[in-house]
Amino acid sequence: MNTVEAGIVYLVGAGPGAPDLLTVRAVRLLGEADVVFHDALIHPGTLALAARAEKILVGKRSGKHSTAQRFINKRLADAARRYRVVVRLKGGDPMLFGRAQEEISFLKKNSIKVEIVPGITAALAASAELGVSLTQRLVARSVVFATPRTAAGVAPSGWERAVAAADTAVLYMAAGEGRAVKDALLGAGLRPGTPVVVAESVTLPERRLSKGTLEELPALAARGSGGPALLLVGEVFRDARVALDLLQRRAGVSA
Amino acid sequence: MNTVEAGIVYLVGAGPGAPDLLTVRAVRLLGEADVVFHDALIHPGTLALAARAEKILVGKRSGKHSTAQRFINKRLADAARRYRVVVRLKGGDPMLFGRAQEEISFLKKNSIKVEIVPGITAALAASAELGVSLTQRLVARSVVFATPRTAAGVAPSGWERAVAAADTAVLYMAAGEGRAVKDALLGAGLRPGTPVVVAESVTLPERRLSKGTLEELPALAARGSGGPALLLVGEVFRDARVALDLLQRRAGVSA
Repeated sequence: MNTVEAGIVYLVGAGPGAPDLLTVRAVRLLGEADVVFHDALIHPGTLALAARAEKILVGKRSGKHSTAQRFINKRLADAARRYRVVVRLKGGDPMLFGRAQEEISFLKKNSIKVEIVPGITAALAASAELGVSLTQRLVARSVVFATPRTAAGVAPSGWERAVAAADTAVLYMAAGEGRAVKDALLGAGLRPGTPVVVAESVTLPERRLSKGTLEELPALAARGSGGPALLLVGEVFRDARVALDLLQRRAGVSA
Repeated sequence: MNTVEAGIVYLVGAGPGAPDLLTVRAVRLLGEADVVFHDALIHPGTLALAARAEKILVGKRSGKHSTAQRFINKRLADAARRYRVVVRLKGGDPMLFGRAQEEISFLKKNSIKVEIVPGITAALAASAELGVSLTQRLVARSVVFATPRTAAGVAPSGWERAVAAADTAVLYMAAGEGRAVKDALLGAGLRPGTPVVVAESVTLPERRLSKGTLEELPALAARGSGGPALLLVGEVFRDARVALDLLQRRAGVSA
């Protein structure tokens, strides 16, 4: 199949929020883009970098995944046949809870070129803001990124064992389900006193960081204001309180 | 203690290699830096962004960790007392196998302001180059980043159980120890046919990606040319062969 005329679809990581945490490559591609298909919750300052592009919101609700995904796949392929530079902009990194594989497979099957531009995933931005390294020499030699979230809510399916086996864990799409996550992790053998941090809207002015223990997780998670939130779990966060207090004071945010 | 006169130490992630995978924030700070303390193996194009800075290589050998680290800590603190913008530039992300915590703790203890700027970690760049998402809906809901490396070589200490419990794994500082890693992972219950990829010098022209199975790992790892390498493990890489062939052909690199 001759694809010389077709454009390229770039799956681009938008990073954790703040526009200056985009990569230089992402900024260049946004500037060159003819059309940008973007998730919900992308920072307006990031979208503004795509000055000459048509910008199309393709955020989807978790309930109706497959229909929505097929529709996005088709729109990306259609766009690649009409335009030179098509950007699919995803929050964080495309290859980590970004549902990229379905888009990559569909586009490749249709002989459309795909390139992926990595982004800063929220876990690393949260770690930076807390001043607490996810791995630490002699203390934490493994960190797992996992999600308990399925279309039906939180279901035990191995993620909780992966968390229990790693020294540090970061859970995506978990903070809305504080009680179910707490129960699953206690069931997997974590102690009730395990330090946890709920990190919401990291890198943005409205950021909230709340620290406590696994036992307190439902209450911590319920305090959130509904922004995208991560749950960080592990002994490395035991001393995060000092860092957190300093940070909140500087930002004028209440814990 | 009055620290109004002191500078700020920025721990900055240099990303996986290619200079255009730096964040915009990192580029700005390099441009403003008075002095840059950098790891070995930072791309010359990245260092060149610190046009007006004194550039000091502080890469260290794994054997003499603690002496070297104390020396780096002290130099960072001294620099912060003399300069306004001190950049500590680390490969990948500072908070993931970057040994950041020792520097952060020392600087805070000495009342020096520290800010951390996240970077693209090599695992995400390798995933992007392979075109294989580390997590996949219904298939891989957890990914662990771990290292088997200690000062004494590879030692079993839980990292192998963390790998076995997660759906996908990326091992840092592992590819030089193919046989020990293979034995540890087989011992933890992984099947000999588990797909693995050795990814060396990702994002750079000299990149090498070699795919095989866990059983073949020692041979795959031995083919490397000694550049920094990652080991990716898991079922998501089973179909990576097609992507890999395309990639190698395009880049003119032999597998």
